[in-house]
Amino acid sequence: MSRSIRLAVIPGDGIGPEVVAQGLKVLGAVLPSDVKLDTRPYDLGARRWHATGETLPDAELDSLKDHDAILLGAIGDPSVPSGVLERGLLLKLRFAFDHYVNLRPSKLFPNTPTPLAGRPDIDFVVVREGTEGPYTGNGGSLRTGTPHEVATEVSVNTAYGVERVVRDAYERARSRPRKRLTLVHKTNVLVHAGQLWKSVFDRVGAEYPDVTTDYLHVDAATIFFVTQPERFDVIVTDNLFGDILTDLAAAVTGGIGLAASGNINPAGAFPSMFEPVHGSAPDIAGTGKADPTATVLSVALLLRHLGYEAEAVRVERAVAADLAERTGKTRTTDATGDALAARAAG
Amino acid sequence: MSRSIRLAVIPGDGIGPEVVAQGLKVLGAVLPSDVKLDTRPYDLGARRWHATGETLPDAELDSLKDHDAILLGAIGDPSVPSGVLERGLLLKLRFAFDHYVNLRPSKLFPNTPTPLAGRPDIDFVVVREGTEGPYTGNGGSLRTGTPHEVATEVSVNTAYGVERVVRDAYERARSRPRKRLTLVHKTNVLVHAGQLWKSVFDRVGAEYPDVTTDYLHVDAATIFFVTQPERFDVIVTDNLFGDILTDLAAAVTGGIGLAASGNINPAGAFPSMFEPVHGSAPDIAGTGKADPTATVLSVALLLRHLGYEAEAVRVERAVAADLAERTGKTRTTDATGDALAARAAG
Ligand SMILES: CC(C)[C@H](C(=O)O)[C@@H](O)C(=O)O
Ligand SMILES: CC(C)[C@H](C(=O)O)[C@@H](O)C(=O)O
Repeated sequence: MSRSIRLAVIPGDGIGPEVVAQGLKVLGAVLPSDVKLDTRPYDLGARRWHATGETLPDAELDSLKDHDAILLGAIGDPSVPSGVLERGLLLKLRFAFDHYVNLRPSKLFPNTPTPLAGRPDIDFVVVREGTEGPYTGNGGSLRTGTPHEVATEVSVNTAYGVERVVRDAYERARSRPRKRLTLVHKTNVLVHAGQLWKSVFDRVGAEYPDVTTDYLHVDAATIFFVTQPERFDVIVTDNLFGDILTDLAAAVTGGIGLAASGNINPAGAFPSMFEPVHGSAPDIAGTGKADPTATVLSVALLLRHLGYEAEAVRVERAVAADLAERTGKTRTTDATGDALAARAAG
Repeated sequence: MSRSIRLAVIPGDGIGPEVVAQGLKVLGAVLPSDVKLDTRPYDLGARRWHATGETLPDAELDSLKDHDAILLGAIGDPSVPSGVLERGLLLKLRFAFDHYVNLRPSKLFPNTPTPLAGRPDIDFVVVREGTEGPYTGNGGSLRTGTPHEVATEVSVNTAYGVERVVRDAYERARSRPRKRLTLVHKTNVLVHAGQLWKSVFDRVGAEYPDVTTDYLHVDAATIFFVTQPERFDVIVTDNLFGDILTDLAAAVTGGIGLAASGNINPAGAFPSMFEPVHGSAPDIAGTGKADPTATVLSVALLLRHLGYEAEAVRVERAVAADLAERTGKTRTTDATGDALAARAAG
């Protein structure tokens, strides 16, 4: 049987191309030899926008659709007005490809620095909703630029959208040893959305009696992230709260240089997209200082999503082993990629 | 000259009455003898709601208005549906009395435990907008409880509302030694509100050339809160981001048991309201375990707001001195109040 992976690659801006190169290196090293890896690069991001004014033309969106997965580096550059690439490219992909599960695991690996005293045992995953909430672009401004301006942002939440992501989170919780699921929201203030999330969470929960659940307001959740992160197993939350919490989670588990993510369309109607949580870090682009580990861990999520579980585990073990031996001495992006590829292949 | 303070007191739920009693004790101990303190208690919160169905009747709101300030303990009880007291009482007060500056200082006192390794030097203040954003109650739900439900929450932001809080934050930054002001928002996603906040921030900033400014996305801000909190001096942000960030700030500076806040109407058209950031903690209510320090520090903010600067400083020094000698052994709520009152009076 011959197998193949058609992978679209969007290196993007800043350190994006550098870290993506290492992700592809590790992917190539770990895939069984009978798997044909067919990569196609897409020139999208700040350079393209400056050259053509385009963020994500329809033809490109169509052609991206025709892949098994997408690997994305990072999007964004100070030379482009805030929001243009984020909304015109990154969020457009998440929405167009219905990436309703934004999966963000957080694990504190041995020997990895953490700002937390006492090195708590952190190993949880945030299931962030990816296609609704305040990210829909719903809103506007009236009398813009005048002293009478009114600007609104509308968080849109549907039973359909909430139920499918909540179900996914219950499934993930069930598959983990601790079988715990925490809903994070702000039901005491955002009462309409909160009521929807909470009632769906409780109703679906009746089908998962083996999963222990609890609820936290988002403000309280941030406290536990730093005082008791070991209490979390699976967290499900809305798009904006998930954005905030996963950066905090990254910070307490060794930093944004290690945080992986998958923008997943579980049914497979569209290609899922894998990307490090970090941004394009224009300040260190081209210096060879970027840590490609988050991208490599995103490749592990990609492998798992495509059914290459053994290979995913090999990549994750390679990262854990490499981290265990890091000395704090700087290594180039390329050298880290080499080290991870060698271990993962081994 | 005889002076007086007409203080409305809302002990509220759970540990609220216990901590408020200590706040009043310290206030009584520190006020000059020629100041007449005239307190009036208000029975508002869960008990009242169960008994009468009322959260904040108009007559009570009117009578509260007739005070120099309000001291509030905590609102909320598991027996009351989520949102009823928060929106019907706490937020109603903040909105009715136009508390547009929600002031939340964060300081890591010597000897106070922090979850952060390395005990960074933390001393910043968050100026949280208090009357707009996603807290306006704007939104609703359609086809509630059906598989076709759509629930919305609208963040409402006005040039008027943003400018006045941004100005207040610049003034505070100017009055501090480091003169730094950071705007926190999510301008790359919430582009309409973000554009309003950013343009007002920049425009008003031109009048404060002595204040150094920067901007952070809210997700990135949470990272700095745990990796580099010493970088912050004054932060200005919207109602929801401020809610989240100030709980995190409390967590890294010794916990929610120490976090004070003032809901301030700077012009004095309405009484300002002072309250600990923590909630009603029903699990420890009545056990004498609640730490009243956050309420006592809120009393210091109250004193400062009413012009009793020397007395405010005495209360803050009393807290610092007491914290410096805390051993981790538990002391009752009342004993802590006594200790603080004795030091503040001294
Ligand atoms: C760049 C930005 C639009 C994005 C988000 O807010 O989702 C990023 O912060 C992330 O977490 O992937
Ligand atoms: C109780 C709740 C409505 C309130 C808020 O969200 O503002 C609280 O969390 C706070 O920070 O004062």
